[in-house]
Amino acid sequence: VLKEGERIDDLQLKNLKIIQNPKGFCFGVDAVLLANFAEVKNNAKVLDMGTGTGIIPLILYGKTKAKIIHAMEIQKEVAEMCLRSFNMNNTEDRIKLVTDSILNWQSYYKKHEMDVVLCNPPYKAINSGILNNNDYKTISRHENSATLEDFISTASNLLNSKGKFFMIHRPHRLAEIFEYCTKYRLAVKKLVFVHGKPTTKPNMVLVKAIKEGKGEVLVDAPLYVHNEDGTYTQKIHEIYGEMWTGGF
Amino acid sequence: VLKEGERIDDLQLKNLKIIQNPKGFCFGVDAVLLANFAEVKNNAKVLDMGTGTGIIPLILYGKTKAKIIHAMEIQKEVAEMCLRSFNMNNTEDRIKLVTDSILNWQSYYKKHEMDVVLCNPPYKAINSGILNNNDYKTISRHENSATLEDFISTASNLLNSKGKFFMIHRPHRLAEIFEYCTKYRLAVKKLVFVHGKPTTKPNMVLVKAIKEGKGEVLVDAPLYVHNEDGTYTQKIHEIYGEMWTGGF
Repeated sequence: VLKEGERIDDLQLKNLKIIQNPKGFCFGVDAVLLANFAEVKNNAKVLDMGTGTGIIPLILYGKTKAKIIHAMEIQKEVAEMCLRSFNMNNTEDRIKLVTDSILNWQSYYKKHEMDVVLCNPPYKAINSGILNNNDYKTISRHENSATLEDFISTASNLLNSKGKFFMIHRPHRLAEIFEYCTKYRLAVKKLVFVHGKPTTKPNMVLVKAIKEGKGEVLVDAPLYVHNEDGTYTQKIHEIYGEMWTGGF
Repeated sequence: VLKEGERIDDLQLKNLKIIQNPKGFCFGVDAVLLANFAEVKNNAKVLDMGTGTGIIPLILYGKTKAKIIHAMEIQKEVAEMCLRSFNMNNTEDRIKLVTDSILNWQSYYKKHEMDVVLCNPPYKAINSGILNNNDYKTISRHENSATLEDFISTASNLLNSKGKFFMIHRPHRLAEIFEYCTKYRLAVKKLVFVHGKPTTKPNMVLVKAIKEGKGEVLVDAPLYVHNEDGTYTQKIHEIYGEMWTGGF
């Protein structure tokens, strides 16, 4: 089941396992935080846009009673590795993978059919920063194949009224996040800033928005990854259990 | 110089003093944080919209080399007390008070003449919450006389290109803050969330926006008022010096 350079990690969650390639593509803390931030009701229809290794569908498979968890991934090699992870776990009853761009959603899903849409999109705007030579990382980190607006508009197209959108992104793009959510009728309802330590600026923000929602934004208590002494916080231990595999 | 119920407090800043009425109108920590958050260059033309006791102009008078600090206050009784504070400090060379609504700005100022506009506006939307019987507090806390959109549009009308807008508000109104700033061409450039303690959700947010600006939003390190043990943080001691007079 493994190709060269790959390894299998135990998610410490109902015996679920995941294939990763330390030199290619591994999941990050952001995906784990997002999967734990999402609210998924029993029998929900869920889509994870840009699923990468498949970490988010696997966590939701283990933790929720979602009826179906769809996943899209544009990068063929990562999607193929992800599919092997899904098959290894026998998740085909509730996880369905499509290897295509989110821009082609209409080929696979009906408008407004989802109860929950998640994404951990590329953080860097097109043409910003240095493009990584590794194609995996370039597409995962840059908006070359789909922009922030594409992710948000696609989520809006797929969500039913009062359906929920969960995303993790960089705080420096908050103005765009609000702009596009407003444009596509997703009301931002909750933000959680994620800080390396309590005294540092946040480097990620968790966003919950509701399709055709209204009312106030709750900026909730921050999530600190490390204590001031560098140890992981209790909250991170709770989220990760024994599953921690990477840096931050 | 004092009316019944009033007292004089020393700002511990270049011998500046301020009149407050503990049963009527006192300045809050929010105004002090905003005055310290603002960036005011030498010779800047500044406006504080809804100045209340005049705390913000007095701090800026003591701490900056602004050329002129304009202040507007709609409530006659508070404005009269504020004027007595200004006169007591002999600040008439650099502080000018107007007793009127910010909606009448065109009667006093030229379009785009300000380098910096500040406001610590009422936090509560019209008709939300219970109106306080005390008129002072009703106008100071509710948007009866001017809405959040009015404050932001007025700031935009008064700021020159690249002029700076500084505001403190409640985090739950962030979506509107972004919406109106975008609508009136004020690019949100920095947010600082203010928390009672590191583990609580923020109850205030400091906002910096630039007229006709562009680019990323910096969500800076949070400002904590208290340590977990309830003592004031070092940062608050630095901002306040000996001037702390109220609760939080």
